[in-house]
Amino acid sequence: MNDSKPTVCLVGVGLIAGSLGQALRRRGFAGEVVGLGRNAANLEKAVQCGAIHRYALEPSGAVSGADLVILGVPLGATDAVFERIRDHLPDHAVISDVGSAKGCVVESAQSRLGDALPRFVPGHPIAGTEHSGVEAAFDHLFVDRRVILTPLPETDPEAIERVRAMWRAVGAEVRTMSVSHHDRVLAMTSHLPHMLAFGLVDSLTRNPDHEEILQYAAGGFRDFTRIASSDPVMWRDICVGNRQALLGALHAYREDLEVLARLVDQADAEGLEAMFHNAKNTRDAYLEWLEGTATGERADDSE
Amino acid sequence: MNDSKPTVCLVGVGLIAGSLGQALRRRGFAGEVVGLGRNAANLEKAVQCGAIHRYALEPSGAVSGADLVILGVPLGATDAVFERIRDHLPDHAVISDVGSAKGCVVESAQSRLGDALPRFVPGHPIAGTEHSGVEAAFDHLFVDRRVILTPLPETDPEAIERVRAMWRAVGAEVRTMSVSHHDRVLAMTSHLPHMLAFGLVDSLTRNPDHEEILQYAAGGFRDFTRIASSDPVMWRDICVGNRQALLGALHAYREDLEVLARLVDQADAEGLEAMFHNAKNTRDAYLEWLEGTATGERADDSE
Repeated sequence: MNDSKPTVCLVGVGLIAGSLGQALRRRGFAGEVVGLGRNAANLEKAVQCGAIHRYALEPSGAVSGADLVILGVPLGATDAVFERIRDHLPDHAVISDVGSAKGCVVESAQSRLGDALPRFVPGHPIAGTEHSGVEAAFDHLFVDRRVILTPLPETDPEAIERVRAMWRAVGAEVRTMSVSHHDRVLAMTSHLPHMLAFGLVDSLTRNPDHEEILQYAAGGFRDFTRIASSDPVMWRDICVGNRQALLGALHAYREDLEVLARLVDQADAEGLEAMFHNAKNTRDAYLEWLEGTATGERADDSE
Repeated sequence: MNDSKPTVCLVGVGLIAGSLGQALRRRGFAGEVVGLGRNAANLEKAVQCGAIHRYALEPSGAVSGADLVILGVPLGATDAVFERIRDHLPDHAVISDVGSAKGCVVESAQSRLGDALPRFVPGHPIAGTEHSGVEAAFDHLFVDRRVILTPLPETDPEAIERVRAMWRAVGAEVRTMSVSHHDRVLAMTSHLPHMLAFGLVDSLTRNPDHEEILQYAAGGFRDFTRIASSDPVMWRDICVGNRQALLGALHAYREDLEVLARLVDQADAEGLEAMFHNAKNTRDAYLEWLEGTATGERADDSE
């Protein structure tokens, strides 16, 4: 371990944690990156693709020497991982995670981390692809991306700063917000679209002619359903973990879909055009903003 | 006009007809490509970007000398265009269109084309982008794409062959099916996804905090909503034109979404995972098929 650079322990090394490990090494942020997991073959792969220096199958060989411990496991495993690492955490270690829902992670932390709770900084990098596993990791995944931290009232400000510095080091822009706000926002922008895409493809497969039907699907369908190729276990856990906010978003969307169905049923050309114009304007403005921001951040990144 | 090569008249020169014009010229299929429209500025642009050789604002200067007349107008304009060109069509001219719904086009043709009906071949190239207008045209838009023709019992087989030859010349694979089958299939693979994407973005804009919310939208959202940047007028017409099939698809989807909402509400992890696995497997298989087919067609294209 390098004296001035932190030792980072990644618990669960898949796409997100693997990309983080690669990026931390490339940017020279970490003295050592250690993987902790149960699957030696996967951890071997993580070493080979440069995500970690070495790995351990037991917390004693990984967490005990860590300055930063980052959970990269599916949300459903959070509870068990906290339980498993708790007694091995050094007093000064800062803990964070990359889970897509924060309420359920905070509940786990509150019930499992005990005295270490103030050093836990709930985090969520808004980044990823439809692929999973450390083989899909790449070191620029977080460049120009947002990372949301949702600290609790009792969270140690220094712990927040350490986690913020880590994400900035890999090119991300860090924001903070409340746990409940995060979960509502992400339900709308990420969890609901995933449900709609999974739902559309699942719905299609119930049609006995779906193989023939899919032959006539074009680029729109391919892009619309890209996220339906995402990891089912990860998304199962997000649905359960962010159940309340997702149900709210699903409910609002189904009501809007009913309005749309009524417009179609009534052949209300004017109403349909107004709705599509509104959507197009918002989406085009979003894209413009996204492109503008990306450029701005890239400039910032080169400082 | 070249003796051996047909004169093609494009009525309405936007993304689709413009790309067709460029491709027909590049592949040397057409002797002359003439644009017909009402907007001289747009037709000037079409000349400049190589989609047409020349244009006319009246049918007499365009349709009268054409061997092939292709409608590239929004579905809602079909009726008026048939009415406008009918008396100028040479006896031998073959007529086709590129509309995304076929039932409504066929109804227009039946009521407007009179004796020319057997020479009308309803067509739909499954190609496009979220952009519109002739500025967005490009000559390889149809390479490796499917074009569906939905001939009627009375359609002249030679007319079908001419239209088929035109689309093959620009790299597309031509299939035929019934009007009603086309409209049901496209409702599921294209019209419904567009409605879901427009609906999602429209639904978001009803949230007073949508500008802040969109800042946390990631790549999944961007791809999922790409088609919500499509032309509102075109999609208004598709909704009205393919109303019945679209309502059926919307209804089936809303029922499936209710099932999904119930799984989330009951935190049914097993049920959710099964649904996501099913969707992912279907989507991954579709992608594999798509990639395999594309390669095959490219090989065929070089014959």
